Formats: sequence, structure tokens, C-alpha cells
Amino acid sequence: MNTDVLLDRLRQHIEGQDSAEVKRLIESLHPSVAAEVLACLAPFEMQLALELMEPRLRADVFGYFPSELQHTIAPQLSEKVLVDLINLLSHDERVDFLGDFEDDKKEHLIRKLAQKEREDVRKLDSYEDGTIGAIMTSDYVSLRPSIKASEALARLRQEAPDAETIYYAYVINEDRNIVGVVSLKQLILAHPDRVLEQFMKREVIALHTRDEAEEAVRQLHKSDLLALPVLDRQGKMVGIVTYDDVADVAEEESTEDFHRMGAVGDLGTMSLRTASFRQLLISRLPWLLVLVVMNIPSGWGISLFEETIAQVPSLVFFLPLLLGSGGNAGSQASTLMVRALSIGDVHINNWMALLRKEVGIALALGAAMGLAVALIASLRAPEVMAVVGLTMVGVVLAGSLIGMSLPFLLTKFKMDPATASAPLVTSLADVCGVIIYFSIATSFFPMATPS
Amino acid sequence: MNTDVLLDRLRQHIEGQDSAEVKRLIESLHPSVAAEVLACLAPFEMQLALELMEPRLRADVFGYFPSELQHTIAPQLSEKVLVDLINLLSHDERVDFLGDFEDDKKEHLIRKLAQKEREDVRKLDSYEDGTIGAIMTSDYVSLRPSIKASEALARLRQEAPDAETIYYAYVINEDRNIVGVVSLKQLILAHPDRVLEQFMKREVIALHTRDEAEEAVRQLHKSDLLALPVLDRQGKMVGIVTYDDVADVAEEESTEDFHRMGAVGDLGTMSLRTASFRQLLISRLPWLLVLVVMNIPSGWGISLFEETIAQVPSLVFFLPLLLGSGGNAGSQASTLMVRALSIGDVHINNWMALLRKEVGIALALGAAMGLAVALIASLRAPEVMAVVGLTMVGVVLAGSLIGMSLPFLLTKFKMDPATASAPLVTSLADVCGVIIYFSIATSFFPMATPS
Repeated sequence: MNTDVLLDRLRQHIEGQDSAEVKRLIESLHPSVAAEVLACLAPFEMQLALELMEPRLRADVFGYFPSELQHTIAPQLSEKVLVDLINLLSHDERVDFLGDFEDDKKEHLIRKLAQKEREDVRKLDSYEDGTIGAIMTSDYVSLRPSIKASEALARLRQEAPDAETIYYAYVINEDRNIVGVVSLKQLILAHPDRVLEQFMKREVIALHTRDEAEEAVRQLHKSDLLALPVLDRQGKMVGIVTYDDVADVAEEESTEDFHRMGAVGDLGTMSLRTASFRQLLISRLPWLLVLVVMNIPSGWGISLFEETIAQVPSLVFFLPLLLGSGGNAGSQASTLMVRALSIGDVHINNWMALLRKEVGIALALGAAMGLAVALIASLRAPEVMAVVGLTMVGVVLAGSLIGMSLPFLLTKFKMDPATASAPLVTSLADVCGVIIYFSIATSFFPMATPS
Repeated sequence: MNTDVLLDRLRQHIEGQDSAEVKRLIESLHPSVAAEVLACLAPFEMQLALELMEPRLRADVFGYFPSELQHTIAPQLSEKVLVDLINLLSHDERVDFLGDFEDDKKEHLIRKLAQKEREDVRKLDSYEDGTIGAIMTSDYVSLRPSIKASEALARLRQEAPDAETIYYAYVINEDRNIVGVVSLKQLILAHPDRVLEQFMKREVIALHTRDEAEEAVRQLHKSDLLALPVLDRQGKMVGIVTYDDVADVAEEESTEDFHRMGAVGDLGTMSLRTASFRQLLISRLPWLLVLVVMNIPSGWGISLFEETIAQVPSLVFFLPLLLGSGGNAGSQASTLMVRALSIGDVHINNWMALLRKEVGIALALGAAMGLAVALIASLRAPEVMAVVGLTMVGVVLAGSLIGMSLPFLLTKFKMDPATASAPLVTSLADVCGVIIYFSIATSFFPMATPS
């Protein structure tokens, strides 16, 4: 059944005030589908539907709403329903949801929560944004090494409705140090009387609360596991990060890199459809202004060579084409490096090796492009054939080296390599391009020295 | 223990020819870690280590090797070991691995496989690259609706070592139509005597073999499920796609978009570190040449206005800055749109609404930038203040509209929106910029009409 059909049917039940059918229909769906259908309802209909639902399902569905919708609908719910809902959200969703309230309201709501949930929020809330601590959940199952497989399964059964993932249980000693891990698969395959320490995996890949969230993305991706345990500074287990959390982080990181490469400022997790005029303006104007300043030297460079241009007017024809090619080769090089650094394909200590490779490739590209532009010149202005051909080699080389080196330099100075955006690289390549073009031109047409 | 320590220890055991210790050490590690350690060994050491390992673990570890390494080591293994290995690889890994052999060798190896695996390869191999069929695995558990929870668990136990994920079992009728799904979590929570159709989820989100692989990424991401079932054209279940497969697809898709936006051609899943000179050249040169051609009109436009330039030389100073700003605003707009289209945040039918929004934002950006450039002009060449200020508004508007519309146009014509790369948008914006600049200039300085 597609969303439209479901939506029509749901609306009919709501109009007919048939609560039992509304409830039945929603509860038959996967929570993510129910969330999608509910999101299409008018606010009062959505409120009605949410209040009819069984509390746990309500929390599940609510957890699938985008954060903007969560905050649109929250004020419509009675405080009791809202607090129940927050109590039942998964640990990490709860922290995210509360984090977007104003401080007063947030504090008020946290005080209303059950004690266990309240302490949990305070703990998770203390980790800095962008760290593993901020995306982990404290909702996991831990077991002692001395219990039997059957007992472990019973424990999982008992904790299952709550634990974010019961597919792994972590085996910890009395100091909360991890000594092993067992998967649900192992538990159902094991003889019921076998003790965990006899068959648990002892080499456990673990994350640390203060590491960057991207580290969780890389480790989970590399290991193909569903979740990884998280340790605090004392090496004690404090949470887990699950595959669905890192899928979100990976998408956000890629979007951020993407935007940076296009010289767009931070839009956070905001949707382009719903981002306000002001937010979009703020994300775009600063870089545009910076780049205006970066382009001043190029203009100044060109105006220095006005006499050369007056003497050989056909040089102007090739100006956009030559400068453009340097910038384009640079954009290519920075794009390749930024992405490779970001997915961990290359590291900062690969710089020298990659630089040598880039010089070779840039010379080959420059030579091919130089031939192409000399060919164009031979048709239109044969007097500048040699100048434009040589310039092309120079600008492609300069652009490529700027584009490939800038991301490394930025990484070295602890900045995001994606700041080496295509527009920034293009602007830098333009300045070099102007200097290269007119230096070569004045050496070929020496009577016209710069004014 | 970190990789270096493990590696040292492993090498010692290999040098000491202590097979038992080599085996014990490797088998204590998570297969992804073992793969990483083994990848650092010399080929003959790796071959030795692989041949010592228990066949199933060998296949697991081999599955974690990057595809280049798989093909470096494959010829070193005896044919028997190789065929055993291929038999034990997961279904989707097997197809990928075989797909990279030359046709003769591939056919030879397929013939050596066990019958079940051979048929499976033939079936999976028939789906086109980039479709869901090509990333799915046929290794899943299916059950009949009338069996009990305890029987279902017994079936899972029996099939567990083979099935890619036993965390879900799909309930199918005699026509192989999916009628429901049960999770392992549900099964261990359910009373042993309950029949599946009493508690299975009936609304199942399913994928289709011929849909694009990105669709699987979107659906799994949205639903936060570990796997989704795949149906053929007759609606019968033929496979599943798992969360770890789509994580790979999502990363590859993002990388592809990234490269396209930087005007870099297809590098596939190749590592930048190991990509050959020739591959890199081929991925970069064609776009650079296309962009040279795209830049010809700009040069031609400028040379048309040589007389205007001769009359008002300060116009040249502002040329790179104005053209650059149009291109930069365009890169920003296309970056935002390409990413939003790619993650499903906006759809092609949002074009008109977004176009209106973009006009507003571009005018605001243009006004702010126009003031900034007029200020620069007031210090250096007050006679062109009005011309450059007005031109800035025009080029930012033109660049933004090109940048935001091109990705939609490309989508409309079934092309990848990311083809609207920053360099392409910049080139198009440059041509418009030249026309706008000199049209405004000649209307302000009317004596100098184009030659």
C-alpha cells in the first residue's frame, strides 16, 4: 500500500471519529512508515493520532519525525503525554530532542522525567557536539563472563524492549572493563549450559567518548558490525554506537564536506527546503565576500599588463580560457584530495608521494591542453600560439599543485580540508594564472614591458 | 592491541614457522582486524597465513580485503584453496570477486564451484551494475507462516552459519510472495508455541531488483532496519540487501557525486593512492577539454569589447572579481541543489518554489556584493562605481539561477544532477557575466559601441 492510500484511509477514520480504526491502522505499519504518513496530516489530526497510540509505538513513531516536525508538534501535546513520550524515546533521540528546546523549557522537562531517564540525559548531554559521546546511547546490554548462554538469553529477553540493539551483549568485569562480546547469533547457537567466557570474542573493537564521531563511522564501516562499545577516559564501558546512528553521521559529514567544497557555510542538518532566507544568506554571503577580496590581485595583475594587451589584443581572447583551465584543474585536484582524506583513503603523510604523482599528471594534462589551445590559436591568432600553449602547461601545473596541496595544508593546521573549496582554489589559481600568462607574454613580446 | 604490535607478533610466528601460533593469533581477531593485519604482510607471508586458516574464517577475512588485494593474492593460492574460498564467500562478495576476473578465468572458476553456488552466481550475475539486484544477496532465511516460534528458532540455528543476516526471517507463502517478517528479537521474546502469522509484521517494506541501488540506501536509512527484502518483477522474493552493503553503496555514491561536482570523471571504487597514472589522466582530461571549449565564448565576448576597454581601462581591473563572483554564487547554488537532490531532501517538483526562493536570495546577495564592489571602486576608479555595482547584482543573479536550475534540468533529462559541476557552472556564468558587464558598461559609456 502506498502512502497516499494509507493517508486517505487514515483521514477517513479520523473524520469518522473512529479511534479504534485509527489506532489499528497505525499500529499495523512499520513505525518509519507510520511517521511518514502522520507527517502529511494537519497538526490537529496528527495530535489526535499520536494521543490515540500506544505509548511505546508513539515514541517510536515520534523518533522517526524530522527534528523540525518534532518541535512543531510538541507544544500541541499535553504535558503528560509529552513527558511520557520523552521517557520512552531512545536515549540518544531523547538528548537530541531536548537539546533543541530553550534552556528554561528543557530544564523544566528534564525535571519531570523519571529519575533513571533524568540522570541519563544529564550524562549524555555532557559530551561535546561532534564527539562519539554525543551520538552514543547508554541503552545496551552488559553481562558477566561467568553466566551461561541460557541465562544470557533470559537477560536479553528481559531487557529487549528497552535496549537499542540486543544483537550484541558486552561482557564486562566488576570494574566495567570490557572483557568480551557475544552476539545474539552466538547465543542462540551455543549450548544453553556453556559459560560466556568459553565462547565470547575477546578482541573487542572499542570507541572512545571524546573521539570524533567520524571515527565511529570509519570503524563501524570497516568492521561491518551493528554496534561498537564506547569507553570513557578510564577505559570503562559507558555506551554503544549503532549502525543507524553512524549512517546519519556519515550523511551529515558528507553534506558538510559537499557544502564546504562549494564555499557554502554551515547549514547543520537543516533541510534546504525549510531553511530560512536568513540562514541561507548567512551561509553564502561571507565566502562570496572573502572571494571578492581574493580576486582583487587578479584584476590588479591584468591592469598592470594593459600595455601588453594594447600591443597584442588577441591575448585577451585567451584570458578566460587559460585562467579557467588552471582553476578547473585545481578544482579537480582538490576534489580528489578532499574526498580521499575524508573517507580515510589517503593520510597526511602520503602528501609527498601524491605530490610527485600530481606533478606528473598535471604536466601530462597541461601538455594535452597546451596542444589543444595552440591549435585554437593557430586558427585565430597564430602570433600567440607559443605563448598560450606554454601558459596552459604553467597554469594547469600551478592550479593542480594548489588544489592538491591546500587540503593537506589545512589538515596540517587542524582545519577541515574541505575548506579548500572549488571557488577558493579557482581564485588562487587565477592569481597565479595572470602572473604566468603575462610573464610569458612579455618575454615573447618584450617591447611592451609592464607599465 | 594495535595493528603494529599484532603485525610484529604475527611476523615472528611466521619466521619461527610456528603454524599453530599463527593460526591461533589470527583466529583470536575480528575478521576485519585480521584482514587489516594480513594486508601489511608480504605476499608469500600472506599466502602462508591464509592457507593455515580454517576455511570459513579465511573466507571471512578475504571478504574484508579491498578488491585489488583480493586479485593480487588470488593467483598465489592453489586452485583448490581458491575454489573453496569462493564457495565460502558471502553470495554478494562472490559475485563481485568473480566479476573482476577475465571472462575465461571467471568461467573456469564458476564451473569448479559447487552446484548451489554456481547457480547462485549465474543468477546474481545477471543483474545490471548499479541496480539493487547487483548488490543484493540470495543468502537469507525464509519461513512459512504456519510454523511455531520454537520451530522458527530451530531453523535459524540451522541456517545461521550461512545466512548473511539471521536477524530477520521473511515469511513467504507457497508462491514466494512475502506475507510478513519476524525479527530474531521477536522470536526470542515470543512464546515458543505461538505461530508466526499471529505475531509477524504484515506491512513489509520491500525493494525491487531493477531499482537503483540508491533506492536501497534511502529506504534502509529511512527505516533504520538491518535488511530489506528484494522482489523480482513478479513480486516474488529473491534476496535481501543488508545495512553493510548499503553503507558501501552510500559511500561510493557520495564519492561519485563529489567527483562529478569537481568535474572529475568516473574513478569507480578505486583508491586515489593506488589509481594508475593513466586512470587519473582519463578521469580528468575530457572535462578539462570540454571546459576549454565552454570558455571560448567568454574570450570572444571580451575581445568584442576591446574599444570599450580602451576607453575605460579600469573596467579590466574589475573583470576577474565580477566574473568570479557570478561563478562562485553559481557554485554555491548548484552545490546546495545537487546534494539536496541526492539525499532526497528536494525533488524535481520543488523546482518552482526553490527558484522563487533563489531569486530572492540571489538579489539580496547581489545587493550586498554590489555595495562591496562599489565601495572598492569608489577608492580606485569612481567613474565605474555604478557600472560595477549594477553588474555585480546581475552576475550574482545569473550565476545563482544557472547553478540552481542546471541540476534540475539534468535530472529532468535523466542525467546525474552532479554533472552540474562547479567548473561547468562557473564557465556558463562567465559567459553571461561578460555579456552583462559589457552591456551595462556600453550603456554607461555609449560612445564606445562594440567594434
